[in-house]
Amino acid sequence: MSAVSTAIVSILKHTPMKVKQQHYKTVWYDSKLNEVNLIDQNLLPFDFGIKTTQHYTETVEAIKIMTVRGAGAIGATAGFAMAQAACEAPLEDYVNYLNQAKLTIEQSRPTARNLFYAVDKVFLAALQSPQNAVEVALEIAEEDELSCKAIGQYGVSLLNQGSRILTHCNAGWLAFVDFGSALSPVYEAARRGMKPFVYADETRPRLQGARLTAWELNNEGIDLLIIPDNAAAYLMWQKKIDIVIVGADRIARNGDVANKIGTLEKAICAKHFNVPFYVAAPFSTIDFQSESGSDFIIEERNPNEVSHVSGLDASGNLQEVQITSPGSQAFNPAFDITAAELVTGIITEKGIIKPLDLISFDNSPTL
Amino acid sequence: MSAVSTAIVSILKHTPMKVKQQHYKTVWYDSKLNEVNLIDQNLLPFDFGIKTTQHYTETVEAIKIMTVRGAGAIGATAGFAMAQAACEAPLEDYVNYLNQAKLTIEQSRPTARNLFYAVDKVFLAALQSPQNAVEVALEIAEEDELSCKAIGQYGVSLLNQGSRILTHCNAGWLAFVDFGSALSPVYEAARRGMKPFVYADETRPRLQGARLTAWELNNEGIDLLIIPDNAAAYLMWQKKIDIVIVGADRIARNGDVANKIGTLEKAICAKHFNVPFYVAAPFSTIDFQSESGSDFIIEERNPNEVSHVSGLDASGNLQEVQITSPGSQAFNPAFDITAAELVTGIITEKGIIKPLDLISFDNSPTL
Repeated sequence: MSAVSTAIVSILKHTPMKVKQQHYKTVWYDSKLNEVNLIDQNLLPFDFGIKTTQHYTETVEAIKIMTVRGAGAIGATAGFAMAQAACEAPLEDYVNYLNQAKLTIEQSRPTARNLFYAVDKVFLAALQSPQNAVEVALEIAEEDELSCKAIGQYGVSLLNQGSRILTHCNAGWLAFVDFGSALSPVYEAARRGMKPFVYADETRPRLQGARLTAWELNNEGIDLLIIPDNAAAYLMWQKKIDIVIVGADRIARNGDVANKIGTLEKAICAKHFNVPFYVAAPFSTIDFQSESGSDFIIEERNPNEVSHVSGLDASGNLQEVQITSPGSQAFNPAFDITAAELVTGIITEKGIIKPLDLISFDNSPTL
Repeated sequence: MSAVSTAIVSILKHTPMKVKQQHYKTVWYDSKLNEVNLIDQNLLPFDFGIKTTQHYTETVEAIKIMTVRGAGAIGATAGFAMAQAACEAPLEDYVNYLNQAKLTIEQSRPTARNLFYAVDKVFLAALQSPQNAVEVALEIAEEDELSCKAIGQYGVSLLNQGSRILTHCNAGWLAFVDFGSALSPVYEAARRGMKPFVYADETRPRLQGARLTAWELNNEGIDLLIIPDNAAAYLMWQKKIDIVIVGADRIARNGDVANKIGTLEKAICAKHFNVPFYVAAPFSTIDFQSESGSDFIIEERNPNEVSHVSGLDASGNLQEVQITSPGSQAFNPAFDITAAELVTGIITEKGIIKPLDLISFDNSPTL
């Protein structure tokens, strides 16, 4: 029996993720007020707050400045933004307004597959009616949540009692509507009493590992150590890492994976040391239109993210400081591409799939 | 004709390294005052200043807190500390004092081979007389400088016009008495008008690349980009890196290399993408007593170096800020070990040597 055909057990028995014992989703939509609510991830881990956007352009800005980030969370938010646009579009200019909104949303984070997936779907629904757009946007968010829950159910089969997992960046519930992708199997293992241990790459330059992943795991009571990105291979050499699980921002039909910059280094090192390397992602991350990762557009972000960093000073105030030699330039690619041959398997809501088998799931019409 | 037997050309035609057009060495010894002078590397790149130590224990402290760091600079400083100890030792307790000093110095940075090399030599000299200790300590510093200059002469043969070099951490002149190891071929290439271009890994957690390497290269007018450590494999994938050159803190007789944490990841990625990976180091870095890298003691440093970082705030003042999720622990190994099989060659003052050929240079008595 292949993993793909295994029934998803207990998919409906949600144990949603918590912040200080209270349940939150990363993003949610109030259709009565046409408002999008987001956990403001730029405040984390030092402060916790919700950002509310009332127009699609504000929602796009929140994606751009990474108030919300992570594959599924960006996707759901982009879907909500498209629904907001449908609700606010003037009747006399409805289709033009939708087209402009679609373009604006798509330009916010060019590498994020889930964004395009959600915008396409909600755009088509919006052509029928704003109400339709809202329904489809809500469905996409619900689908994201269920997929992540299923990824946890399948992925936990790869873990043993006390497994030591390396992860890169944040592919936890903050990167999705709930549950997460790479961390969903870890949360499921913890619920089953398997005491997983996580090494969290700090993930320069934006430190999503040291900030978001560490914060999430702390809130769930899971043991972890933050490591400099440089230390992962050393830990593999010491045989202290049993498995690597990361997320994905876009996956090509041949199994190539775009994910946070540095993922490629982890994958190459894992292969070198024979450590299994898994990518966890819902099907909405798969881009069947791209033959390989070479087709992907890789976002380059502001070099200031490398030269400057914010943190808490001795008085507990957030300060931004310059950490590089003044006058030097930096280069800041947001993602890299990991070749399918480096990926042991892709953990999806349909089971664990070999990257080269992805193609058999392509239902898109033959050109 | 092997590279090893090639005569060292123009070894005496020094073009020493400069800070704002003025020549400085990283460390120098005033034997009249029995004082050691050090460029305070904890001030760089935001400020420039000289620290002077009057007793060997102050010099040891400067090594510990990394006022001075880098293989050769640590070695020379440790030799000077041993000479200081010999000069300040009371006659009635001379040998005991020397033994205690040797132990204290050796405990400051356990992975640094050059430190043990210098301390051993100066200790033996000190057993004859303080004056002898001073002479040998000065010789070691001079030898370091000449070796680095020769490394530049040999290493430049690996570069072409416009070569794009990736380096990790700082193995420039700040890491030695002068010239540097990994950067010495780059400086020589620049002098010859070859316009080298350097990608400098920022080198978390202490950011020696973003701070010291960038500062050095800026002072010498060499083009560079600082990159997050995570971006190196992506640049190799893009075929934007022609060669990797790094330094070393200790090299075993089988060619295994201990160097700054993260070096191992670069070496594995370089092999994956068929990019030549060179280690530049004087013979004083080679530990013929260690069969392999598994014998090395790897220093673990304070996790605060991962969780906190200092930089310039908006007012131009140095501030330390916490950058990780409060309550999370971090792991901070200072070095990793790169297996000889990953190293294309070792650039030394005797020529460029295959790691497996190192053993033929072992002159130590057979046990």
